[in-house]
Amino acid sequence: MIFERIKSEGLAHLSYLIGSGDEAIVIDPRRDCQVYFDLARSKGMTIKYIFETHRNEDYVIGSLELEKLTGAGIYHGSGVDFKYGNIIKKDGQEFGFGALKLTAMHTPGHTDESMSYALTDPDAGKEPIMVFTGDALFVGDVGRTDLYGPEEAPRLAANLYDSIFNKILPLGDGVILCPAHGAGSLCGGMISDREYSTLGLERIQNPVLQKTEKEEFVKFKLEESLEFPPYFKKMEKYNLQGPPLLQGLPVPKLLSPEEFKTEIEKGAVVVDTRMPHSFGGAHIKGSYSIWLGGLPSFAGWMLPSDKPILLVLEEKEQLETAVRYLVRLGYDNIRGFLNGGIAAWYMEALQIDSFNLISVHDLKARIEKDEEIVILDVRSNEEWEAGHIEGARHIYVGHVEDNLDKIPKECPIVVYCGSARRSNIAASILKKHGYNKVYNVLGSMVAWKSAGYEVVK
Amino acid sequence: MIFERIKSEGLAHLSYLIGSGDEAIVIDPRRDCQVYFDLARSKGMTIKYIFETHRNEDYVIGSLELEKLTGAGIYHGSGVDFKYGNIIKKDGQEFGFGALKLTAMHTPGHTDESMSYALTDPDAGKEPIMVFTGDALFVGDVGRTDLYGPEEAPRLAANLYDSIFNKILPLGDGVILCPAHGAGSLCGGMISDREYSTLGLERIQNPVLQKTEKEEFVKFKLEESLEFPPYFKKMEKYNLQGPPLLQGLPVPKLLSPEEFKTEIEKGAVVVDTRMPHSFGGAHIKGSYSIWLGGLPSFAGWMLPSDKPILLVLEEKEQLETAVRYLVRLGYDNIRGFLNGGIAAWYMEALQIDSFNLISVHDLKARIEKDEEIVILDVRSNEEWEAGHIEGARHIYVGHVEDNLDKIPKECPIVVYCGSARRSNIAASILKKHGYNKVYNVLGSMVAWKSAGYEVVK
Amino acid sequence: MIFERIKSEGLAHLSYLIGSGDEAIVIDPRRDCQVYFDLARSKGMTIKYIFETHRNEDYVIGSLELEKLTGAGIYHGSGVDFKYGNIIKKDGQEFGFGALKLTAMHTPGHTDESMSYALTDPDAGKEPIMVFTGDALFVGDVGRTDLYGPEEAPRLAANLYDSIFNKILPLGDGVILCPAHGAGSLCGGMISDREYSTLGLERIQNPVLQKTEKEEFVKFKLEESLEFPPYFKKMEKYNLQGPPLLQGLPVPKLLSPEEFKTEIEKGAVVVDTRMPHSFGGAHIKGSYSIWLGGLPSFAGWMLPSDKPILLVLEEKEQLETAVRYLVRLGYDNIRGFLNGGIAAWYMEALQIDSFNLISVHDLKARIEKDEEIVILDVRSNEEWEAGHIEGARHIYVGHVEDNLDKIPKECPIVVYCGSARRSNIAASILKKHGYNKVYNVLGSMVAWKSAGYEVVK
Amino acid sequence: MIFERIKSEGLAHLSYLIGSGDEAIVIDPRRDCQVYFDLARSKGMTIKYIFETHRNEDYVIGSLELEKLTGAGIYHGSGVDFKYGNIIKKDGQEFGFGALKLTAMHTPGHTDESMSYALTDPDAGKEPIMVFTGDALFVGDVGRTDLYGPEEAPRLAANLYDSIFNKILPLGDGVILCPAHGAGSLCGGMISDREYSTLGLERIQNPVLQKTEKEEFVKFKLEESLEFPPYFKKMEKYNLQGPPLLQGLPVPKLLSPEEFKTEIEKGAVVVDTRMPHSFGGAHIKGSYSIWLGGLPSFAGWMLPSDKPILLVLEEKEQLETAVRYLVRLGYDNIRGFLNGGIAAWYMEALQIDSFNLISVHDLKARIEKDEEIVILDVRSNEEWEAGHIEGARHIYVGHVEDNLDKIPKECPIVVYCGSARRSNIAASILKKHGYNKVYNVLGSMVAWKSAGYEVVK
Repeated sequence: MIFERIKSEGLAHLSYLIGSGDEAIVIDPRRDCQVYFDLARSKGMTIKYIFETHRNEDYVIGSLELEKLTGAGIYHGSGVDFKYGNIIKKDGQEFGFGALKLTAMHTPGHTDESMSYALTDPDAGKEPIMVFTGDALFVGDVGRTDLYGPEEAPRLAANLYDSIFNKILPLGDGVILCPAHGAGSLCGGMISDREYSTLGLERIQNPVLQKTEKEEFVKFKLEESLEFPPYFKKMEKYNLQGPPLLQGLPVPKLLSPEEFKTEIEKGAVVVDTRMPHSFGGAHIKGSYSIWLGGLPSFAGWMLPSDKPILLVLEEKEQLETAVRYLVRLGYDNIRGFLNGGIAAWYMEALQIDSFNLISVHDLKARIEKDEEIVILDVRSNEEWEAGHIEGARHIYVGHVEDNLDKIPKECPIVVYCGSARRSNIAASILKKHGYNKVYNVLGSMVAWKSAGYEVVK
Repeated sequence: MIFERIKSEGLAHLSYLIGSGDEAIVIDPRRDCQVYFDLARSKGMTIKYIFETHRNEDYVIGSLELEKLTGAGIYHGSGVDFKYGNIIKKDGQEFGFGALKLTAMHTPGHTDESMSYALTDPDAGKEPIMVFTGDALFVGDVGRTDLYGPEEAPRLAANLYDSIFNKILPLGDGVILCPAHGAGSLCGGMISDREYSTLGLERIQNPVLQKTEKEEFVKFKLEESLEFPPYFKKMEKYNLQGPPLLQGLPVPKLLSPEEFKTEIEKGAVVVDTRMPHSFGGAHIKGSYSIWLGGLPSFAGWMLPSDKPILLVLEEKEQLETAVRYLVRLGYDNIRGFLNGGIAAWYMEALQIDSFNLISVHDLKARIEKDEEIVILDVRSNEEWEAGHIEGARHIYVGHVEDNLDKIPKECPIVVYCGSARRSNIAASILKKHGYNKVYNVLGSMVAWKSAGYEVVK
Repeated sequence: MIFERIKSEGLAHLSYLIGSGDEAIVIDPRRDCQVYFDLARSKGMTIKYIFETHRNEDYVIGSLELEKLTGAGIYHGSGVDFKYGNIIKKDGQEFGFGALKLTAMHTPGHTDESMSYALTDPDAGKEPIMVFTGDALFVGDVGRTDLYGPEEAPRLAANLYDSIFNKILPLGDGVILCPAHGAGSLCGGMISDREYSTLGLERIQNPVLQKTEKEEFVKFKLEESLEFPPYFKKMEKYNLQGPPLLQGLPVPKLLSPEEFKTEIEKGAVVVDTRMPHSFGGAHIKGSYSIWLGGLPSFAGWMLPSDKPILLVLEEKEQLETAVRYLVRLGYDNIRGFLNGGIAAWYMEALQIDSFNLISVHDLKARIEKDEEIVILDVRSNEEWEAGHIEGARHIYVGHVEDNLDKIPKECPIVVYCGSARRSNIAASILKKHGYNKVYNVLGSMVAWKSAGYEVVK
Repeated sequence: MIFERIKSEGLAHLSYLIGSGDEAIVIDPRRDCQVYFDLARSKGMTIKYIFETHRNEDYVIGSLELEKLTGAGIYHGSGVDFKYGNIIKKDGQEFGFGALKLTAMHTPGHTDESMSYALTDPDAGKEPIMVFTGDALFVGDVGRTDLYGPEEAPRLAANLYDSIFNKILPLGDGVILCPAHGAGSLCGGMISDREYSTLGLERIQNPVLQKTEKEEFVKFKLEESLEFPPYFKKMEKYNLQGPPLLQGLPVPKLLSPEEFKTEIEKGAVVVDTRMPHSFGGAHIKGSYSIWLGGLPSFAGWMLPSDKPILLVLEEKEQLETAVRYLVRLGYDNIRGFLNGGIAAWYMEALQIDSFNLISVHDLKARIEKDEEIVILDVRSNEEWEAGHIEGARHIYVGHVEDNLDKIPKECPIVVYCGSARRSNIAASILKKHGYNKVYNVLGSMVAWKSAGYEVVK
């Protein structure tokens, strides 16, 4: 038996390849799906089935792509109008591969058609050994139930309770838990950064599962407040109808500064994936700063889906990663990247922009001197509520571009987040919209606390 | 948290790297230990502790080597006279690294000093999440208790019962099981080829753990009959005193056929790692055939520890694998390999030997024609007892060289095993000792059964 | 400036990537052309032009494939009716890229439209620094002039003389020579295995260029006798019309023995790429033996272009190499490869075939005992004429299948070549056609001579 | 025959591996010499000889290291007191390997013991095919003759003339030139960035070789003015006595910000290898900025040889490159690198420094506004003389730290070079020494010219 957990960084998306004999299955494949084919083949296996736990909203599902590559059949739950693949109509449907067996279970709550799949090793016993729970049950958290809007949320939360307590947990304490997300996903705010757990551990350690009364569980879920990025809608549509086939990753062109400039003038959007300390010093006017590792989480908030994308990278070796991150969100139209990076741009004496990076000590000094500044905290609600710098205003980074009217233009704006990365996104948006006195705080809240400065709630 | 299972193929040895924050630990490192250092470093972690579950007898432990490379402290159990590292004196001793905690538990039975280690994630709860059981508990089997000889076996078996039923299983059904071996190890005959399990699953699915009465359990263990390769003694000594430091893998010399011949004449032993269908056709007279993947299991049975080793490989790219396999068993004196492989040898018109590879259909025909042949089955006792070809004699491959007096020289010898690989080892030994009419059966018992031919018990 | 010589092993085909600034060119690209794109991109360069020296007959040209990948323009000579790319109409046409300049020269002789290209570095001087001569001039040899048949040969030989002596050599002794082939190519029998030379060195060291009188040169060329493999015709057609686009290498399926057998029954041809010592011992009945490194030279002689191909490999890692070698010859329909190799086949008790591998000492003994055997030498004419085993018959390996009527079926056939590889091809053909007593001589002529046995002319 | 040119980036050092049959030789190996062993072995070759063209002054020679790894013999010229290896006593000494032959020639001028080596392929002819000229003759330039000081320079220049015109060029126009350096080396200021040439091409294109009269040649050489970095003395000593053996690259420790800070306090020197646009925004106070690719050329100018080195990297993947670059200059004591890079530092609220990066447009505006600024040009003499910004002062980057008394502290300093990289080194030195108003000009002279701004001579 082989078992591989394939993690898509940033999205914190977990997919799985399980194989036995010369047959393998994949659960929730990502769109850049060569990895499953290569892994299976390296073990002398052919992929027989592809399973989806649900119609994801946070990334483009790779099932169709993998079907094209392997010929394997796609299976998903009933209840939404999938335009591709096969519907699993009844609970308990079984799929054999090699010496193993997968049993489908309808576990609605996160979405109506959500499925879980229990894996059995009949040679060892009839009890399941693993369960693939999609977005129903995570390590340390459960799936969100707010995707259909506030009216449907009570019903979904109740469904989720039933799915977890009456279907999943009864599989047995010894069953290994294989969820669709790890820490950092937008699909659950408290997911543990440990990826290894069992139903027995979750039963006693998962904070949400301590709410064993249905009413209490539902109440807790209704009080949750999670961000809902605008691109979710597009992903849902893609994942219902089947996204366009890529058949290999897009290969963006190598563009000279002059060609790059021409593409900008024709309307392409520039994304600069460097770190804040590099971006702040010099960047192309009007570009979005989203550090490489932040693309999966933040590109979908700000990048338009109908314009070509141009990339500025720290090192050209990062191109493939950037491309993977973007196509997983459906940004397939990546026009090119700047040959030679930002240095090539400024060597041609083309226009650059910059903003100041300040330390927490500088910020503290400015506050103490009572300078006229606006301090903008762009972290999430949870982080803001857990403590912030006195006098700061709060707008989540994903909402900055839609709330510029709440940010004065004439006065210096000091932006901070947890580290300096999300605040750099915000700073780039402000610069893009004509704010001239923008400062980003290096280290932000982490450094602020390291320095022992005060935090208020 | 990071968690990596590093598998040494062939030995079916499992070691573990666990990390949190910027600290990591390693459990039961192998001797070619750069892999742990590289993995930890790629995650920005430093290795802080090295733990041994017990003094292994089937491979050279890599703790000293890894200590040299990283400066990490070595810890193992008490009760044997280790000449290196630190003794864990009391049950329950705790070791913190990053946000995690490891708790040592004395779990004798396989050996007297055997330890298990329970891993806790205090941020999630006080209950352990994983347990590293060494050779106490495997997936589908338990450790052997016969290593101290028949007199000590009852005591060890009783100890193992206590360790498993009174210390390990009570940790909880939801605990993930991390043993020191997978299927194929000489340390347990029925280990599952699935490497993923939990204490809950073992409690209900492990055949040995169904013997819940101590008496019954001990009786079962005493009836077991496992092979005891001669090199175990050397490994035990190494692992008690600390093996010689390698500081990098040995780099065998590239030898021309002429140089290779000279080394043979000076007393070096030739090991040919090609597959049976390649070895049978042409090989250097007097060489041992042990296919590459079989080195970890069979080299220790036949190769002397005091002579230099020479290698004949199918492809030179296989050299590193062969070297790793040999040093894991303490064969550090690998003099060289034949540049250009067997073809270079025969291009120089040097002496070659060969023997016939026959199909099961040929063998069947010979039997039916009542030809005067000796059929030799070299599989394990268990395999032999489960069914063999009528009229065959049985000598385990590891014992062939010591039992040549039981095999007539004048008459054709047809050797078989499960596939043709172990029988090829045996055939090479027979040729080495002057047997001229040797045949190896391609596909052996698997093919015999595929062909639908009869098997007797 | 970058300069990369990309060698296609087996074909001994040399192609070139030259770059300057952010522009690059490719000369005579092969069909699996990702390598040029990747190399150029790693240097921050875009491929601007693709040049062909001539319509090759020994491999499928990759120009169209590379144009599709990069958008670069294709250029070739006039005089044949190319269905793609641009014709270079006049001698001396110049192409600039970065700081460099390429000048086209019409150098007919090997073919009528053959071009050479001289590279100049104007910053250093007006004299050319390199010349890309295609199949006009090699290191140690010149191009063959027999491709249009004996009637055209005198004209072509005279043309070649003019091209070399009046156009290429006058470029200057200091010019670096970059031909389209190295040693081992079918396009020249005496090409040096050294790939580095200059016009000055060739002028004094190349044996053919010592024939400085035109008449003498032409006479020499007309006396040459080179093999003309049947697939040359197909290559010529492909390279005139433009071959089918691959857009990525074909990915053969992983086939179980049962599936493999089914494909054979449906008419697919089996090619076994193992070495003779592995093939002889056990192989699938009816398969062609062509060792991996011999595919580029020998597949075209025997494999039909209209049937699917099935592969048996020593190691599955060799698949990609086998696929590359086959598509370079236009064999795109590679149905699959045997999962698990020949061992998987015999484990299922499926029919295997074999033949004996004998040493030169065995052969010598048989000859001395005056056994009734046919000794078949399958080497080239040149090799045969340079000396062979007394009493042998000669049929070039490429002609064996068409000359079976000259080889008696009832008597043992002992085949030899230079090493045992080409004779293994011949042996596999004989077995395929029902010859039962076939022997291949390990080491063949090289070993025969190493052993000091007599050779006759 | 195999021929591999191994280039050490930055140093622009060229070394060579040549092989024939199963024997290979190496010319002028670098210190991190595993590459030669691996290349030779991948071709089935053993390294037989190591040749040095001369006692290098710009990098640590790797001969001893490679001898330790391979057992090959080292050979170099006579005339200096080498403490290792073998002296070649007479001109014309021959060394055979495989089918090739290397002939030693004494070619003094760059140093007294300088050797060239001519390679012959006796199978093709008696004329040499390649010549390895060390620092005597480059593509487009000849070796410097000023290393023994002004008194010896006339003698050395005359010697070089004789070596080139009377020994090297007479080998023949068709001989391929293989020098020890390419463009960018400190050993010749006009070396072409094209690495491919022949003696014939140099004879007509090399500007220095156009001075065919000895007197004129010597006069030209004496007028040359090349930088002489302080570390040359140490390299010379190392290369005379034999440098310390590394036996594998040093492996710097992963240091937390706290540990890093402790090492700084204990006296270690910080080198930050990021690009200017990243360094300017935030860096550790007191660190030297030397971008990664600039380490080979500039580390030797400023880093003390007796203090441990600490690294700050943009990406941890760059560590190995940084380590290679440093050990090639004899900096073996690399204590560690900052885990997590500069971001980890500022997350802990540790002190950071910064300086402003300005565009050429900003600089132009400041000049036009007649602001009180010092403009500092840190390029080489040649570059300065070819044209600079009006009003600038000139101090070569390598001399800035020794000439701080010439740079006023109270007034803003605007530093520029060709691009912004060398000026960033200078800016970091100024900051280190307490200058507070430091500006680096992005794009520097290249951008200044791109913008069309005026340059004066």
